[in-house]
Amino acid sequence: MSLITELAQAARNASRQLAILDSDSKNQVLQAMSSALRANQEVILAANLKDLDAAKANGLSEAMLDRLTLTPARINAMADGIDTIVKLADPVGLRRELGTRPNGIKVSKLRVPLGVVCMIYEARPNVTADAGALCFKSGNAVILRGGKEALGSSLAIAAVLQQVLRLFNLPEALITVVPDPDRALMLELLQQRQTIDLVIPRGGEGLINFVTDNSKIPVIQHFKGVCHLYVDRAADVEKALNLLLNGKTQRTGVCNALEGLLVHKEIAPVWLPIAAQALKDKGVKINCDAASAAYFAQPTVLTDEQFGAEYLGLEIAIRQVDSLDGAMNHIARFGSHHTEVICTEDLQAAAQFQQAVDASVVMVNASSRFSDGAELGLGAEIGIATTKLHAYGPMGLESLTTEKYLVNGAGQIRD
Amino acid sequence: MSLITELAQAARNASRQLAILDSDSKNQVLQAMSSALRANQEVILAANLKDLDAAKANGLSEAMLDRLTLTPARINAMADGIDTIVKLADPVGLRRELGTRPNGIKVSKLRVPLGVVCMIYEARPNVTADAGALCFKSGNAVILRGGKEALGSSLAIAAVLQQVLRLFNLPEALITVVPDPDRALMLELLQQRQTIDLVIPRGGEGLINFVTDNSKIPVIQHFKGVCHLYVDRAADVEKALNLLLNGKTQRTGVCNALEGLLVHKEIAPVWLPIAAQALKDKGVKINCDAASAAYFAQPTVLTDEQFGAEYLGLEIAIRQVDSLDGAMNHIARFGSHHTEVICTEDLQAAAQFQQAVDASVVMVNASSRFSDGAELGLGAEIGIATTKLHAYGPMGLESLTTEKYLVNGAGQIRD
Repeated sequence: MSLITELAQAARNASRQLAILDSDSKNQVLQAMSSALRANQEVILAANLKDLDAAKANGLSEAMLDRLTLTPARINAMADGIDTIVKLADPVGLRRELGTRPNGIKVSKLRVPLGVVCMIYEARPNVTADAGALCFKSGNAVILRGGKEALGSSLAIAAVLQQVLRLFNLPEALITVVPDPDRALMLELLQQRQTIDLVIPRGGEGLINFVTDNSKIPVIQHFKGVCHLYVDRAADVEKALNLLLNGKTQRTGVCNALEGLLVHKEIAPVWLPIAAQALKDKGVKINCDAASAAYFAQPTVLTDEQFGAEYLGLEIAIRQVDSLDGAMNHIARFGSHHTEVICTEDLQAAAQFQQAVDASVVMVNASSRFSDGAELGLGAEIGIATTKLHAYGPMGLESLTTEKYLVNGAGQIRD
Repeated sequence: MSLITELAQAARNASRQLAILDSDSKNQVLQAMSSALRANQEVILAANLKDLDAAKANGLSEAMLDRLTLTPARINAMADGIDTIVKLADPVGLRRELGTRPNGIKVSKLRVPLGVVCMIYEARPNVTADAGALCFKSGNAVILRGGKEALGSSLAIAAVLQQVLRLFNLPEALITVVPDPDRALMLELLQQRQTIDLVIPRGGEGLINFVTDNSKIPVIQHFKGVCHLYVDRAADVEKALNLLLNGKTQRTGVCNALEGLLVHKEIAPVWLPIAAQALKDKGVKINCDAASAAYFAQPTVLTDEQFGAEYLGLEIAIRQVDSLDGAMNHIARFGSHHTEVICTEDLQAAAQFQQAVDASVVMVNASSRFSDGAELGLGAEIGIATTKLHAYGPMGLESLTTEKYLVNGAGQIRD
């Protein structure tokens, strides 16, 4: 058996033991993991230092080096993250009664772990602890395949978590870091559909597409975030301005930042001059339709096909629309099913927008930046799904589980 | 744009109109479809006759000809199926409140259609009506790609349904039959991940594997059904016998038939002789472990690796186990995540089995043959999932939907 088949099979076997562990026991283990991370900072930092030296020698960008760097504060933050997960309700074991059939058999559904989850991610050592703890709490074994630059750090973190597993007589294979960054092994990993139930890639669009194209295992996909704010004719001028600035400038480079602004033509003459000044003050580069060009100094005028870009920076696309329908048509065409926002005081328009817009999060009078597991109250987040199968939007513990049917009879047979 | 891209795009556009239709309107359309199928029997039967003539000329097997054949009674059964779907509760529009965050934003989830569903199936014209109606009720456009032998019949059925859509000013593209059976076009269909949300293959393992291997769109998979009955030491002898005979012989060739029998060694001396006689009376071919061979006349003795076959006929694999754990280990190794049954009067053993066995349906004292959407109370069934993502087990209307997040604020922004 190859290394990959073997570790996937070991994870599958281990997952059966975890699936039947009760919540209290799982929380005890997680608490011990949090303490162990805090107690073993030195060894984790030493491994991280080696990763950093190699990464600098290989000329990694400053941004990537920053994501790779661990500090005592960052290790404490990982431990805090696990403490948060301890406090979350455990979805496993929840039972819904579906009813009794005419023949007397009772049908219900029981929430159970998926089994084995595989995370594919870039050089972020914190994902090792975060995903490890989320999968553990939801009763799943996890196989972690992170970026090669962070391999030493990930192995050190996993070693600490595995030490705790041993202490509780649980198999180490519940949390496995793939020890070899060879791309061929990652491809092999993506073929293990007998033993792995779900693959979650986290990273840029290139990584997501690579995993989607090569996986025989179901993949939860998070494509780009092209989020819009639609300022309705019944919008509150000040709220609209706050939502625009917060969505576009509070943090750029994240998937829930605004990339597009749609403005009802009736409110444009009043509101766009104010918005233009505020965007100018924040240094936001303007791309807009011809109708709106006069409101801005030196905008880039976009043709119809040029809308829909994910700028990930201080840049935005602005367009006027004739109606709510016009806004919704634009979003259907250029949105990415991530997060869409309407700003309006018209309850009917708000309801219509929320019903009809096809996005994982549809907001009324709230910043797109709230589209995040922690902000929506899920606790920690294992990812955001922009496709609709299994999960749609921020994914918490429940997304790492499924429901099986239970049937209880008294010997009934089928006619 | 190619034919396939065009029809997928048309389905996507049409789906937006259907997604916002209320339940009453959808039911009116479905009722009209049912009536139209009954009223247009002649034209459907004429198209079917042409399909049958061609199929006979091509030497199709009797079994396939039978599945292909339509009769007035079968068309009425299709219409009855639609009438049943009318009566089912509509999952679309159900809203769950998740709570209000400390900053005052309200978070909820709204159940919405997936969008566009693609069915890939063999030469069964009835799937065209069944899947068309299920997808319509759940608010989805559907693209139907059935076996080429039934193409004329499928097109005739779809034409009747589309006539009703036109009558209600709804786009015909809500129900599309791919008009060309070319395999290359099917492959192209499986690439349309921008416009199609889900692919459901229905048919043999070869078809499922072909679709899984070639699809860029999420696929709900239904692999084989290797279902076991475990007769515990605390089993009721008569119930166990009934469950065995019903599961194995009431209908063979179906995925929820029993393929394996596990018997606790303490009950084997009492129960296996009775079971052996009953199986002999029904003409069931026996494969078993060495320990059980003496109970049967001329059994085939299986080695360890030979268990796990899907016989789909009057044939079964029998093994004795030392304990409940032994039974569950066998199932973990050889089961197919479809349906597993325990026969026992020991409530604790029953509970342990239901918790720990990883199958989409886990039963206590009930026949595996109940593992079916209609029998479990889902109404109609679009398929059975034996993988855990999105759906696990029989899939009804709810499985054709997803949930999006709704956020309602008063202008809140993120710090």
